[in-house]
Amino acid sequence: MATEVPDPHQLHAALQTAVLKCSERCLYQAAKWAAEALTSMPSLVPQNDTPLPQSYLHPTSSDEKEAILQAGELPTYLLSKSYFDVHEYDRSSAVLANCKSSKSRFLHLYAQYIAGEKRRDEESEMILGPLDTAATQNREVQSILSHLEAVFTEKGDDINEDDSWLLYLYGIVLLKQKNEDEARASFIKSVNLYPYNWSAWLELGSTLGNLGDLNNILQSLPNNIMTNIFVLYSNQELYQTSDPVHAQLADLQTIFPTSAFLKTQRALLYYHAREFDEAEAIFDSIVKEDPHRLDCLDHYSNILYVME
Amino acid sequence: MATEVPDPHQLHAALQTAVLKCSERCLYQAAKWAAEALTSMPSLVPQNDTPLPQSYLHPTSSDEKEAILQAGELPTYLLSKSYFDVHEYDRSSAVLANCKSSKSRFLHLYAQYIAGEKRRDEESEMILGPLDTAATQNREVQSILSHLEAVFTEKGDDINEDDSWLLYLYGIVLLKQKNEDEARASFIKSVNLYPYNWSAWLELGSTLGNLGDLNNILQSLPNNIMTNIFVLYSNQELYQTSDPVHAQLADLQTIFPTSAFLKTQRALLYYHAREFDEAEAIFDSIVKEDPHRLDCLDHYSNILYVME
Repeated sequence: MATEVPDPHQLHAALQTAVLKCSERCLYQAAKWAAEALTSMPSLVPQNDTPLPQSYLHPTSSDEKEAILQAGELPTYLLSKSYFDVHEYDRSSAVLANCKSSKSRFLHLYAQYIAGEKRRDEESEMILGPLDTAATQNREVQSILSHLEAVFTEKGDDINEDDSWLLYLYGIVLLKQKNEDEARASFIKSVNLYPYNWSAWLELGSTLGNLGDLNNILQSLPNNIMTNIFVLYSNQELYQTSDPVHAQLADLQTIFPTSAFLKTQRALLYYHAREFDEAEAIFDSIVKEDPHRLDCLDHYSNILYVME
Repeated sequence: MATEVPDPHQLHAALQTAVLKCSERCLYQAAKWAAEALTSMPSLVPQNDTPLPQSYLHPTSSDEKEAILQAGELPTYLLSKSYFDVHEYDRSSAVLANCKSSKSRFLHLYAQYIAGEKRRDEESEMILGPLDTAATQNREVQSILSHLEAVFTEKGDDINEDDSWLLYLYGIVLLKQKNEDEARASFIKSVNLYPYNWSAWLELGSTLGNLGDLNNILQSLPNNIMTNIFVLYSNQELYQTSDPVHAQLADLQTIFPTSAFLKTQRALLYYHAREFDEAEAIFDSIVKEDPHRLDCLDHYSNILYVME
């Protein structure tokens, strides 16, 4: 798959909007990833003389019905978001119970999911306690699943970008129920409707056990630079260290020249091929450039140990 | 001090913008407070037929020079914010080191402050460890203080709303150094430049030991509804349970009729006056309306214990 070079201004705007959209929805890891990609691009000469880019606007829906719902629900949404930000997840979910926009419905159910995860963690911590033998589960999953299925039944085929977040969450709860095939289908729908949610791609990648799985879904992925990044990442995760993969990576690095994420992919390709000197040199330069970066340092540590 | 009733549309817009401004700056507790005040107002009939309110825009500076700086630093700012959101505070601070807008400078130093607080907490946790006897301190305070003083020297009298956040942080680090008088002056400057950051008011309140302190600063506070809320809150905190205070509260409740915060102030006034039946009835209704609300439940628990 050749990397079609997108217009840098469009990509810049798309990534910038992605940070806002992910952050608004408290998908902090996805926001971080998009922000890293954004700042790894070369600086742009502004296209016109307005000091503020259009994407500085709080991103809203392009669907008029949804945009009107979101505007009406804005104060409640901000309240819910603020509770989420201070880790009051049940409360964050509860205030959105009667909201109808896709955006509000997402945060309503996502906060419920996180509340369930937190309770599960707390229960799991009781080592040698009464619950130690029972497999502790997120007890919100079934309720979220039913809720989402009701929403999708109501919407039918009338789904758009705003629903991509709901499909992402649907995939997550399906995975919790070990329903991998339907989860994968849901993540594929999600990234087709909105390709800039990196968390959806990561979850999709987690459902791929081998190269055959990846090849089976290639035709279903959107025609977007994010697909190229995902395919490169999946090849690396599946230990494909051939020359075409390195070439694919080089293509991507012309778009994101300072990307530490892409540099890490290169180092991991060398690592999988047991070319430790090359891998070590790259990790070394990543750490020098950003001493605070912790991502994948476990591999770096392994390499240094092996080379001793 | 009579409560001058502000135009509800203006107040609604101001509070909505405050949530965004606080949240953007990771001042989550202040964002939560503003969101609660916002949603405790009666619903408004929209003033015109545009579906999206102006404040739905990502709030930007009204100072042109600052706005242009902010626009240029937006990608870096979003990156820093995304690191903050995933609790990588040193990294969040580091990426903004060379930024020049007041907004970026604030998050740069605030993230440094939080990183210092986190390290201090971790050191304090070493009970009976080597550091147990030493009073553990936030070791970033001196550096933040010097940095802020250099910024204020550079700016001279040319300060505006964007600097209110820096003055808020300046007050916090001054308090850490037990410099209460200068801290109080800094908080007063901050709330005059931007009155909707509730955290600045709370810190200001923490410097008031008695009614005399409150009366001494009254003339220095801005002519704004937030001043009325602060004065009411301070009276309650200082155990002033007279009829005029109750009347002041009643005035505020006509503006924020469903405010749980104001209801709690009423309950606390009764509590301080040892009128436990009235206090208990109010707490009871607050818990019924929002079972997830935890704020001030310690007082409710005390009341129930006393009344047994």
